[in-house]
Amino acid sequence: MNMDLDARPGWLSSGDLESARERLPILYVDVVPVRVDNRGLVTHVGLLLRAMPDGSISRALVSGRVLYAERVRDAVVRHIEKDLGTLALPRLAPSPHPFTVNEYFPDPVVTGLHDPRQHAVALAFVVPCDGTCEPSQGALEFSWLTPAECASEAVRAEMTGGQDRVVMAALAHVGALP
Amino acid sequence: MNMDLDARPGWLSSGDLESARERLPILYVDVVPVRVDNRGLVTHVGLLLRAMPDGSISRALVSGRVLYAERVRDAVVRHIEKDLGTLALPRLAPSPHPFTVNEYFPDPVVTGLHDPRQHAVALAFVVPCDGTCEPSQGALEFSWLTPAECASEAVRAEMTGGQDRVVMAALAHVGALP
Amino acid sequence: MNMDLDARPGWLSSGDLESARERLPILYVDVVPVRVDNRGLVTHVGLLLRAMPDGSISRALVSGRVLYAERVRDAVVRHIEKDLGTLALPRLAPSPHPFTVNEYFPDPVVTGLHDPRQHAVALAFVVPCDGTCEPSQGALEFSWLTPAECASEAVRAEMTGGQDRVVMAALAHVGALP
Amino acid sequence: MNMDLDARPGWLSSGDLESARERLPILYVDVVPVRVDNRGLVTHVGLLLRAMPDGSISRALVSGRVLYAERVRDAVVRHIEKDLGTLALPRLAPSPHPFTVNEYFPDPVVTGLHDPRQHAVALAFVVPCDGTCEPSQGALEFSWLTPAECASEAVRAEMTGGQDRVVMAALAHVGALP
Repeated sequence: MNMDLDARPGWLSSGDLESARERLPILYVDVVPVRVDNRGLVTHVGLLLRAMPDGSISRALVSGRVLYAERVRDAVVRHIEKDLGTLALPRLAPSPHPFTVNEYFPDPVVTGLHDPRQHAVALAFVVPCDGTCEPSQGALEFSWLTPAECASEAVRAEMTGGQDRVVMAALAHVGALP
Repeated sequence: MNMDLDARPGWLSSGDLESARERLPILYVDVVPVRVDNRGLVTHVGLLLRAMPDGSISRALVSGRVLYAERVRDAVVRHIEKDLGTLALPRLAPSPHPFTVNEYFPDPVVTGLHDPRQHAVALAFVVPCDGTCEPSQGALEFSWLTPAECASEAVRAEMTGGQDRVVMAALAHVGALP
Repeated sequence: MNMDLDARPGWLSSGDLESARERLPILYVDVVPVRVDNRGLVTHVGLLLRAMPDGSISRALVSGRVLYAERVRDAVVRHIEKDLGTLALPRLAPSPHPFTVNEYFPDPVVTGLHDPRQHAVALAFVVPCDGTCEPSQGALEFSWLTPAECASEAVRAEMTGGQDRVVMAALAHVGALP
Repeated sequence: MNMDLDARPGWLSSGDLESARERLPILYVDVVPVRVDNRGLVTHVGLLLRAMPDGSISRALVSGRVLYAERVRDAVVRHIEKDLGTLALPRLAPSPHPFTVNEYFPDPVVTGLHDPRQHAVALAFVVPCDGTCEPSQGALEFSWLTPAECASEAVRAEMTGGQDRVVMAALAHVGALP
């Protein structure tokens, strides 16, 4: 999950956010952008390459905080636009159900999902993006991979914090596990 | 659910279908077509007006059999095109999960979902349709109703076989219960 | 949702919690306790009668905050035990998927779910409880109602903040809408 | 999926079933029996060792047809009792939602799920079983494996027809992917 230093008035300052991160679970969204064919079948999964909180250069999901007074689906759109640009054309599902809930802990052994900065609870969504996706704001690269590539040991090893498991769960959810 | 007398060679004849209907649960899809806004929120639900197996003129879902060798998502597209025309532009979700499974029995008290002809098990999907939807093949009318209209006693009373409950479950699934 | 003034060291003080509530969405769990028959079908839904944040005496779900470093499923168990006692014997599903995500806003018109104190995002679960459920810690009463009773206008009118819609969504999810 | 030659009067004879299998998708249930800890977390997954339709000796799920006039949840219980004995004590979820829908085709390349005998559409459920599970009626063995064992290449290679992917999807669904 990426740094999310939102400075709009009325939201948390960086200092306050640090303080809250030591005392409350922070609500996130994890987004798995996908390309689908004309029947809705997933052909590709989009992964960023970015600097992660643990200092590594890793492949990563689109991810970020839900802000005060923001609806979850608006947070999903905002983070897609922030990470992939305003031409990504995400199509959100009518239902607000996440396909899973990812619990990231500072202690890596609780769930296997690890965030050294905080206890984050991320609602995870698979979101078809029909438009042009380009890495923005700090990401180094964005690539569309096939489900088989995503599930390969090589690509899984390039993800950290347990996000490879989130990608596998997304593939399972859409019936695209190789 | 509507009559589905598919006469393509290799599939069941009407007589064979009648026979199978007395001995096997028949796999169906129930489709709730919806209009969504640019954030994916449901603004309208589409209902047909049609002659039903029980002889009534009722509001009804798009619905029909899954054929031999047909994928479930292809059956969803086929029935939408059959009932709403080829310009409906359905957008199927990447995931094959139905939002619920509807069990229709010849005996109306088993589940409250009733089909006098058969034991049908319908995988139910909410499908955004962005295009022009027009009633075809035997339906009398097709209308877009707001969630509040759909959930009203008046509209619920115009549905038979328990399909009003399916519509309510679809509204619940998309967070649009009034 | 009930007041949740947890005073364990390391967690938020009341003052800090008030401050966070003005700046961050707060993660909650909403729990719909149910009685099931031997095939898992829901026969009854459990509702509390309690003083609500808006000052009313209302029927309410089991509900409360997820704490720092606490897993979501542990929060579910903790709030059931807090509200229904330690003999409730909840049986949590293996899957961490909520049946829906409820977004409560201080502004009642955003989603129709209203919490005057805060922006709360609640993961909602239906949890079979086989044991003895008794109202504890501030609730006035706990009753098992049939699905038809829950869905009646009379009972829905006794719930506030939009929780009647959460109960309806739970009934839809378990196939028990009347 | 196992042979399911149900000879009760009123249901299909073997000959009629063969005929129907050439013309209709046949409705199945796929069951992944699990052991859970006292918080509902999956600790073990149960797999049968049995003769499969393709002639192999393979690890397999509990699986079988839904009969005419039978509710899906009754089919789940019946197949668990048939395959694991009457002391398995399955606990079915209140919700009728399958965690996925598995489409098995005679042609192995359509979905990767393969059944040489028929087009079967299986509603898949993860079912905690607290009792004693013993292989009955034709299975050679029944074993409880850890999620890590199930996901290993060695165990996956012992499954046929794509059922290893169903097990992986079940692990993903319950948050137990290694």
